[in-house]
Parts: sequence; structure tokens; C-alpha cells
Amino acid sequence: MTGVAPARTCDPAQLQALRRRLEQTVDDVNRTLDEILPRPSGLYARVVEAMRYAVFAGGKRLRPFLTLATAALFDVPEKRALRVGAGIEALHTYSLIHDDLPCMDDDDLRRGRPTAHRQFDEATAVLAGDALLTFSFSVLAGPRTHPSSSVRCELVAGLAEAAGSAGMIGGQMIDILAAERTYSESEIILMQALKTGALFEFSCEAGAILAEASDQDRRRLRRFARDLGLAFQITDDLIDVVGVEEQAGKAVGKDLRQGKATLVSGYGVDKARAEAARLANEAAETLSPYGSAAAHLQALPFLILDRSA
Amino acid sequence: MTGVAPARTCDPAQLQALRRRLEQTVDDVNRTLDEILPRPSGLYARVVEAMRYAVFAGGKRLRPFLTLATAALFDVPEKRALRVGAGIEALHTYSLIHDDLPCMDDDDLRRGRPTAHRQFDEATAVLAGDALLTFSFSVLAGPRTHPSSSVRCELVAGLAEAAGSAGMIGGQMIDILAAERTYSESEIILMQALKTGALFEFSCEAGAILAEASDQDRRRLRRFARDLGLAFQITDDLIDVVGVEEQAGKAVGKDLRQGKATLVSGYGVDKARAEAARLANEAAETLSPYGSAAAHLQALPFLILDRSA
Repeated sequence: MTGVAPARTCDPAQLQALRRRLEQTVDDVNRTLDEILPRPSGLYARVVEAMRYAVFAGGKRLRPFLTLATAALFDVPEKRALRVGAGIEALHTYSLIHDDLPCMDDDDLRRGRPTAHRQFDEATAVLAGDALLTFSFSVLAGPRTHPSSSVRCELVAGLAEAAGSAGMIGGQMIDILAAERTYSESEIILMQALKTGALFEFSCEAGAILAEASDQDRRRLRRFARDLGLAFQITDDLIDVVGVEEQAGKAVGKDLRQGKATLVSGYGVDKARAEAARLANEAAETLSPYGSAAAHLQALPFLILDRSA
Repeated sequence: MTGVAPARTCDPAQLQALRRRLEQTVDDVNRTLDEILPRPSGLYARVVEAMRYAVFAGGKRLRPFLTLATAALFDVPEKRALRVGAGIEALHTYSLIHDDLPCMDDDDLRRGRPTAHRQFDEATAVLAGDALLTFSFSVLAGPRTHPSSSVRCELVAGLAEAAGSAGMIGGQMIDILAAERTYSESEIILMQALKTGALFEFSCEAGAILAEASDQDRRRLRRFARDLGLAFQITDDLIDVVGVEEQAGKAVGKDLRQGKATLVSGYGVDKARAEAARLANEAAETLSPYGSAAAHLQALPFLILDRSA
């Protein structure tokens, strides 16, 4: 155990069931990604090798899980949700590759393996990230994702918004500028809402988009995702402060040394833990209208705090 | 004059009319880009400033012109073609930003101004490129681009294919690997078909997609674009060999010094000029079924050879 978990308010049996479901999701998502990603061949094989190297670095596939689990609330065929989830994971992987670059976080390790620019080279890593970002839109726009082109356009537009300058990229920009100035608590929350939250939100909303569900459903799933994302980020920051390198799969204490803005440095460890727990409970509560169908999703925030996810 | 133009086989009056049309296109595309690009504000203003800095660096807007001119063959409303052209130009700008990075071509100047990573910094340049790539898909998927979501999905999928690992990015990968090995003539042609040609092809085909034109039209426009793209690339390489810095807007002779693979180094200057002229004639001939409606498009390859475009 990590030492960062707050008092748990989730049935251990539910957590166990969720763990099994997550393992299954990893297999399903990996199989889908393997099927749809290009295969290395010819003169530009190297960039495809780098794409696959980064994608199959052993991620938890949390974002695809969110799409699968929210789509399941509305009985969306799993194959469709898997394609969307795989597209989102490709985009998430691009963001990790570029964030790790020497000009960004300058990380040598990611999930215990050399980062893409260390395993290949910087130019190949930039290109592999670009290609994964491009690929994700190709997947979402493709006719096999959903029979309705209107749904597919909504997915493309939604992903582009979540990932763009007013979303994930904006959050990363704010994060980088933290080296030059100090942010207030609300500014840090905004940064994290953009950097991590926006893609979490889209991953959850995508299930409702695939189902052509109501605006109310979409808003509810976004609210769940916002709380979940913030709880996730606080936990990540806590691990950087109190965790061990093995568990983080990367150098710990690094964010602190780089003067990165985190809620943990503002709140202190105890208040940060309490806030993460409050967010987890709030997230779970948001999904109560879906009854037992939402059990896995409701357990997820607690598993994230537990950080065995 | 540049000294790289072959014997011209195009009416000077047509070239002059095309020049005026291109100037008008620059204005229209710039206005559209200014309208639809995000505006800098808030904590992440810097990345939006970098996006706009790179987009408004004074490009010729050749790719949007191709979309406008091919769309006009089928009487597509100009506003739709302008949006698609602006989206393509945003994507083209991302590729320039990333190609200029220190880990790629390491260029300090682009169109006579500091490159994005010199004007801002490397991290901001990477993010601005990422954001422009993302933005281009957002534009194409948006309902104002075309009433039919099926057309919009085709545009997104087509752009993603042209820009992805089997398109522009694959070509850039091959180009980078040229430092390590020597390519055959056909390999160089493949590299350039991917690196420059794929986006030229999509820019032309987009006019037909917007018009829901026939497969034959789409094939014809792609063939035109392939020849045009290769003629364009050969001219670019010729300028690097025989041109002057002022004209290129960047350091010349650099490709040669970096051992880059170009057809000019294989063919020699004279044969390269002749080949570019042959391609220009072939491209113009491909569009003869459209009669005088295609006059601007048919003059374009000759203007490119002339390099006043």
C-alpha cells in the first residue's frame, strides 16, 4: 500500500470486482490497439515502431475504461466503445511522449522503461507523438466506430476540444509556465482540470455520445469525470511527495524539485488526502441515478486513491 | 527571376491572372484563419500567441488555394472551401513548426522571421504545433464546414490519412533517416510524395469531397496534385542549390550540407529542371476535362516553377 490512501468508503468486494474488470479492459484495449494501429514496414517503419513502443508500454488504460464503462450504462455495443477508447488512448500516449521530451519534463523513464526519445531519438519521438495524435482522429472518424456520421463528427469535435489549446495543451502550457511564477489554488485547479480533467471528461462523455444520450446524461458524466480527474491528479502529486520510485515507475520528488505547481504543496499532505477523498465520494454520488449499473464507475475513484489501479 | 525556371509553356496573361487570384486567396484565407483561430487570453495565452505567430508568418496559402480552386470546379460555396483550406493551412503550419525544431531540421529562420522555437521556446513550439494539428480536425468536423456530417467525416479521415504515419509524417521520417543511408531515385520520389505530395493531394481532393463529386473526379484531382507536389519539391530543392538566401527566406545550401536526399543531387540541376517542367505540363493536361474553369489550376505548376508564387 502506498500510504496515500484516505479512509476508504467503498466496499472491498466492489474494489476487487473493479480490479478484475480493469484487467479485462487492459486486454481488450490492447488487442484493439494492436488490430488498428499501423504495422511497421517500409522506409518509415521506425516511426510506427516508436508509436507502438509507446502505446504498449503497459498503461492502465484508464481512459478507455471510462468510455467502456459509461457506454455500458446505455448498452452501447462494446466494439464501438473499444474503438473510441483505443483512439483516446492513442491520443493520451502522444501527450505522454511529448511531455517527456527534453524541452518539456525531460524524463528518461516512463512506466519503468526508457521514454520514447531515449529508446529511439528526439526527432522520432516528436513524429511518433504527432502520428498518434493524427491517428486518434482517424479512428474516431472511421465508419466502423459508429454507423452515424453525425455521432462520429461529435466524437472528433469533442476529442479535439478536450485535447486542444483550451484543453489538455492549455493545461500543459500553464504547467510549463509554473517555473516562472506562482499559481493560486484556483489556478492550479484550472491547470489540472485542463491538463488531466479535459480528457477524462471526454472519455466519460464519449459513452453518452455513442449512445446519443440526453444532455443531462452528458453533463452528469462530465461532472463525475471532473471530480475523478482532480482526485487522480492529487493522488499522483501525493505519490511524488511520499511515494517510492518503483511504484511511480519514474523518478519521484521530481515535481517538487522542478518547482511544479501542485495542490499538495499548497494544501499539505493531510489536507490533500482529505480533498481527494471528498472528491471521490462526490464523484460516486453523481452516478447514483444509474443504480447498480454504475457500480464499477463508482468504485473507481476509491481504487485511484488506493493507487493499485 | 530565380534562374531555376524551365522553358515556360503557359500563357503569361494566365500567369498574371493567377498571381492576382493568389493574392486574393491570401487575404481570404488569412481573414478566415483570424476568425476561427482561438484568441490569446488567460493563463495559457502563450501557446495561442505562438499558434498565431506561426500561422501569420506570411505563407503563400498554396494548399488552401488548391482547395478553393478545386471546389470552384464544382460550384461549392466558397465559405465551405475557405474553412477546409484554413484547417489544412493550420495543419501545414504545425508541420513547419515541428520540422524546424532543433531535433529536426534545426532552423532559426522561416520566411525571414525567427522560427517558433526561436521566437518563443522549444516547449511552446512543440505545444503550438500540437494545438494547430488538433485544431485542424476540429475545424473540419465542425457543422459550419458542411451540412452533411458524412462529408465532414470523410474530410477528417482524408486529412488524417494524408498527415499521418503513412503520409506526411512517414515522409518526414524517411527524410530524417537520409542522414544514415542513401536512397534510390524511386525512394526519394516516395519520400517526397509522402512528405509534400500527400497534403497537396488531400488539398485538391477536398474540393471534390465538399462537392460530393465522383470517384473519377477525385482520382483526377489527386493525379494533378501528385505531379504538382513533385514539381514543387524539385523547385524547392533547386532553390536550395542555386538560389539566394533572401528568396528562400531561409539559409540556402543547407539541405546539401546536411546530406539530405533530393532529386536534384541525383539528377543534376539540368535534368531536375526538365523533369519539373515535364511534371508541370502533365499536371495541366490532367485537368483538361474541366475546360476553362480549370485555367488557374493549370497555370499553377508553371507559376511554381517560376517561384514567384
